[in-house]
Amino acid sequence: MGYETINYTVADQILTIELNRPEKMNAVTPQMREELISAFAEADKDPEVRAIVVTGSGKAYCAGADVSGGSKTFDPEARGWADTMEDFRDGGGQITLKIFESTKPVIGAINGVAAGLGATMLLPMDILLAADTARIGFVFSRRGLVPEACATWFLPKKVGLSRALEWTMTGRLIPAREALESGLVRSIHTADELLPAAYALAREIADNAAPVAVGMIRQMIWRFAGSDHPMDAHRVDSKVNFSLGRSRDVEEGIKAFLEKRPPVFPGRLPEDAPLAYPWWEEPEFKK
Amino acid sequence: MGYETINYTVADQILTIELNRPEKMNAVTPQMREELISAFAEADKDPEVRAIVVTGSGKAYCAGADVSGGSKTFDPEARGWADTMEDFRDGGGQITLKIFESTKPVIGAINGVAAGLGATMLLPMDILLAADTARIGFVFSRRGLVPEACATWFLPKKVGLSRALEWTMTGRLIPAREALESGLVRSIHTADELLPAAYALAREIADNAAPVAVGMIRQMIWRFAGSDHPMDAHRVDSKVNFSLGRSRDVEEGIKAFLEKRPPVFPGRLPEDAPLAYPWWEEPEFKK
Amino acid sequence: MGYETINYTVADQILTIELNRPEKMNAVTPQMREELISAFAEADKDPEVRAIVVTGSGKAYCAGADVSGGSKTFDPEARGWADTMEDFRDGGGQITLKIFESTKPVIGAINGVAAGLGATMLLPMDILLAADTARIGFVFSRRGLVPEACATWFLPKKVGLSRALEWTMTGRLIPAREALESGLVRSIHTADELLPAAYALAREIADNAAPVAVGMIRQMIWRFAGSDHPMDAHRVDSKVNFSLGRSRDVEEGIKAFLEKRPPVFPGRLPEDAPLAYPWWEEPEFKK
Repeated sequence: MGYETINYTVADQILTIELNRPEKMNAVTPQMREELISAFAEADKDPEVRAIVVTGSGKAYCAGADVSGGSKTFDPEARGWADTMEDFRDGGGQITLKIFESTKPVIGAINGVAAGLGATMLLPMDILLAADTARIGFVFSRRGLVPEACATWFLPKKVGLSRALEWTMTGRLIPAREALESGLVRSIHTADELLPAAYALAREIADNAAPVAVGMIRQMIWRFAGSDHPMDAHRVDSKVNFSLGRSRDVEEGIKAFLEKRPPVFPGRLPEDAPLAYPWWEEPEFKK
Repeated sequence: MGYETINYTVADQILTIELNRPEKMNAVTPQMREELISAFAEADKDPEVRAIVVTGSGKAYCAGADVSGGSKTFDPEARGWADTMEDFRDGGGQITLKIFESTKPVIGAINGVAAGLGATMLLPMDILLAADTARIGFVFSRRGLVPEACATWFLPKKVGLSRALEWTMTGRLIPAREALESGLVRSIHTADELLPAAYALAREIADNAAPVAVGMIRQMIWRFAGSDHPMDAHRVDSKVNFSLGRSRDVEEGIKAFLEKRPPVFPGRLPEDAPLAYPWWEEPEFKK
Repeated sequence: MGYETINYTVADQILTIELNRPEKMNAVTPQMREELISAFAEADKDPEVRAIVVTGSGKAYCAGADVSGGSKTFDPEARGWADTMEDFRDGGGQITLKIFESTKPVIGAINGVAAGLGATMLLPMDILLAADTARIGFVFSRRGLVPEACATWFLPKKVGLSRALEWTMTGRLIPAREALESGLVRSIHTADELLPAAYALAREIADNAAPVAVGMIRQMIWRFAGSDHPMDAHRVDSKVNFSLGRSRDVEEGIKAFLEKRPPVFPGRLPEDAPLAYPWWEEPEFKK
């Protein structure tokens, strides 16, 4: 896939997606948006990919949408994106909904400033680590905008209502320490140790966990995040574990456990997804 | 508005609502309930108000419903509130639903004891600060009641399920330190420093953030708190940012950012609300 | 009730349920599953029971499903559980849905390792305490399975999305310290002090809080955990407090408060449940 604004590299079953416009603080252009969406789609279809690490090239993680076009940057008509409100679809949301749908674990390594879309695109990732110099800014209110990329849905589910409200209403830059205390990031590292820590986590999942199970777990947790009743989960637990319970993965998992050795799971996604997957119907943008 | 049980003061774009029955620990009477509802409605309509600080006069924040009427205080028939279960509407819920609907940021400065309705009315506020002497009590179970004011909806969304269950089932008074650890309050202050800290936060929002954006953000975060799927947010992100993206607020926001100066946003609520607002239909009390 | 795999003991209004297969690390068999379901049903019907403490006999809390049957342990056909995906119901979910429905406060005292179903059965309990030696493992992905017992619904609501995703995708054992930081457990104790601390909490509820109110609070908080709008709570607040407000419990609660003495509530569950209870229709497993 000839990507130009990102690097896409698979090594030892781990995909690294690196935002690669360091001279522009990895600011997102329409091209980068499309390449990110393609990259997550490609990862989903590749059975070799068992975990994804996302990071930025250079000093910043991502400065958000590229505003070098000036004050018309976010004007859908001036940009030729849409003539009517009904036809306009937020670009950031197209990225985060794609990450939301991923069946591969997504680990974000925040190597520096993440602002605007640079911050919101992190939210649907599963596990976040930050450099001690990272600062995360939901800066929209300071530009006159509201957060995009479904951030008002994702953020409170990650850091609670109080912090989500304060961070987005003030629009201030959040230091790594506060991101850690809030639970948004799970650990802070020196610049040198950030990527090794992210790869160690990816390795832990790739080496120990069954890829089919991990993919289903990811979707179950995200899909039940707003569900009203545990019965929703009970139905899926039952169907998915009916299939997995007699799979070669579980046979190997139990054997390895009883023999006190690491398991070697044969199952891969997407080809070995259980019959019940997907158990939902994806909502359309236009109701 | 001739308020008698509260003080309503606007200065420098910040509204202060002070519960003002200090000799009764600011206990809530039916009159105070109506005045609070009016005050939040008035603030919503006033373009001058860009943030709201709520606090209590005297040593207590609020001791809850005034129980000086004795053991019939909560008897809807004896109080003449309603003859049948179907006709009775909890008064506390009418306050908190009004705060929920606000488009202005609401900052609670908990200056002392907050018990019963004094505690539950805090929950729909966006940002809470506490005096180090504050204690917060969801004391209902110790009186034979369940929490009102939609507290069983709000509280777990602010402090998580485990703490919400322990606090409401035991009915014990929570010290400021525990409220901080739980995320319910974002900082603790000496009595002298509490209000200055609350005003500094209100100032930070009023001076830097676009009022229209802030109002929309507030509603987006609260409205998506229980939503099942990020698509709900994606639709609103798209519609609201279509309008804002070509607004004078965003023009000014980008210009100020590129010129490295503070923005001066022309837009005000309610008059400059985007076309898509409100994007929901408010549920009726009676289904 | 002749229980064989658990101990069921009521003393001073507190029920203790002890998993009792210490020689097998309290691994769950089909019989234990049925006994746990019966025990919670029995507690619900017994007005004497005002709080429940759940713990394990011996060094472990519970090692999960008994896998001594080997690699066919989770194969529904081989086990004779079900022939088709539609007919299979996860056994763990039947336990956790029963605990979810309880009107008595449930306190879990995690005395040692809790893995697999041993971990997931803890999630619908209200308050969790842990021994400093406890370790909690959502180990499913390491066996090729997804978590059962509605864990993907419960866990993020207790510890947030980020930790829920990391814990279940890695499948690693979580030390007591991390469980505390996450909010999953509310305190850590030495082995000797764990049960006394659990009983002190049960005592605090039993001695101070009205059993009817506590039962309603428990159901309100769990049932509104995924609700979209506070109006859902407002309707129930209004109906339940209409009944309670004129009950003998509240009469006693206010009197005791004004007389500064502990209340002695006459109301008991299930017999004194308010008219509005239950306010929901329980969903069927098969839609």
